[in-house]
Amino acid sequence: MEKLTSIHNQHVKNWKKLQTKKYRRQTGTYLLDGWHLVNEATQAGNHLLQLIGTEEQLRAYSELQEFSDETYEVTEEVMQHITDTVTPQGIAAVVSLPDAHKIPDSNTLRGGWLFLDRVQDPGNVGTMVRTADAAGFTGVVVSHRSADIFGPKVIRSMQGSQFHLKLYEGNLEKWIEDFKKINAPVYGTQLNPQAKSFRDVEPGETFALIMGNEGQGMSQHLLNQTTDNLYIPMRGQAESLNVAISAGILMFQLNKNL
Amino acid sequence: MEKLTSIHNQHVKNWKKLQTKKYRRQTGTYLLDGWHLVNEATQAGNHLLQLIGTEEQLRAYSELQEFSDETYEVTEEVMQHITDTVTPQGIAAVVSLPDAHKIPDSNTLRGGWLFLDRVQDPGNVGTMVRTADAAGFTGVVVSHRSADIFGPKVIRSMQGSQFHLKLYEGNLEKWIEDFKKINAPVYGTQLNPQAKSFRDVEPGETFALIMGNEGQGMSQHLLNQTTDNLYIPMRGQAESLNVAISAGILMFQLNKNL
Repeated sequence: MEKLTSIHNQHVKNWKKLQTKKYRRQTGTYLLDGWHLVNEATQAGNHLLQLIGTEEQLRAYSELQEFSDETYEVTEEVMQHITDTVTPQGIAAVVSLPDAHKIPDSNTLRGGWLFLDRVQDPGNVGTMVRTADAAGFTGVVVSHRSADIFGPKVIRSMQGSQFHLKLYEGNLEKWIEDFKKINAPVYGTQLNPQAKSFRDVEPGETFALIMGNEGQGMSQHLLNQTTDNLYIPMRGQAESLNVAISAGILMFQLNKNL
Repeated sequence: MEKLTSIHNQHVKNWKKLQTKKYRRQTGTYLLDGWHLVNEATQAGNHLLQLIGTEEQLRAYSELQEFSDETYEVTEEVMQHITDTVTPQGIAAVVSLPDAHKIPDSNTLRGGWLFLDRVQDPGNVGTMVRTADAAGFTGVVVSHRSADIFGPKVIRSMQGSQFHLKLYEGNLEKWIEDFKKINAPVYGTQLNPQAKSFRDVEPGETFALIMGNEGQGMSQHLLNQTTDNLYIPMRGQAESLNVAISAGILMFQLNKNL
């Protein structure tokens, strides 16, 4: 086990660089920060490429070393440097990015799916993935020009849900076509009282729900492609709901037959 | 109209101090930042004690001056200093705090009410108030040791909903008693599959829903006082939902008869 005390060490520099999308893509890896996420990864059968911890934490979680190719002991200063949290727990791991670009074949499209159309805020993306997991959804597909699903803030809000469901990046037009081919409904969402009330849909065991950009909602060309567009009737004077709240309300309505 | 260019001016210092709970309580006022909130206040018939704007914004929103006792023109630097936003819009106002400690009489308890038991995160509190507004709820009661409902972050997430519903601080035990006196159900929430499924309740026109602290949930003594405690059945492997997401799912289930 190597001990690293300097933030100028090349390993440390590389871990820090994993905060950028470019370096995550280049290396095909990302960083999990904190014992909860590292545990979730190993429990889901994931392999840790590198386990990184302070002396104290590596001792406390010594069983984690079994799951790891390489273990590095670092100072608290180094840990602070490589994570973007204010008070890191002192345990982190580098794991492989899943193949987010893979297009699944239509046999695997069973269940509830959430599609995110240019959702910008990392906290919203992460919270929606976590909620999809709790709602028993099969997967989440994130469009291009959404927040990067393996950025530190998304990772933090997902709370490990990336290990419980399928997570893809992709072209939503193609995904919608795939769902139509197997006669599964695709529900768009629209801030439009003329759209269909979310209480009036009874989906079966396979369907997709699309949530749109925080400010602009869903793209018009996707709205035109859907089976139905849903609306949450609002009774007060609020003009809209936060996108993650809307997604929660809709997913827990649509998941009744999952 | 007074022009203020220095952050050392006494008015400017006082506006800055409105970021603290202590000074808000002492003066009975708080600060609204940005045109959306200032507009919401005046549309709801609120009086602006002081309107503060850059030259450009005061010109653009000159009609606001009718609603204000005093108007102050400030520099962008001053505006930046008194708000906690990175790029303020250049328009702000000081308004009176509502009397959050007033106990309403039981005639006013009609409708849906949300009670927050020690919810800590200002964003969660603000988002839940906004969602309660959209769900057509009558009011929100925030317990002691919750995030301050007139702090800058709560104000920002509420997006003006404080002008659409009743907002109180108070002792939730007393509020529960008041609801029981008029035979209105009070629903607690619990991460416990033995609790009642949220889909199995059909509340009438008056009820209260309690959401608890992010980490610990609701206090045991409040759970013992409720009519029923509700649970959102989770299908995936996620251990819990974000409290604001749960509140959204529950409020849009319970509001069917409002």
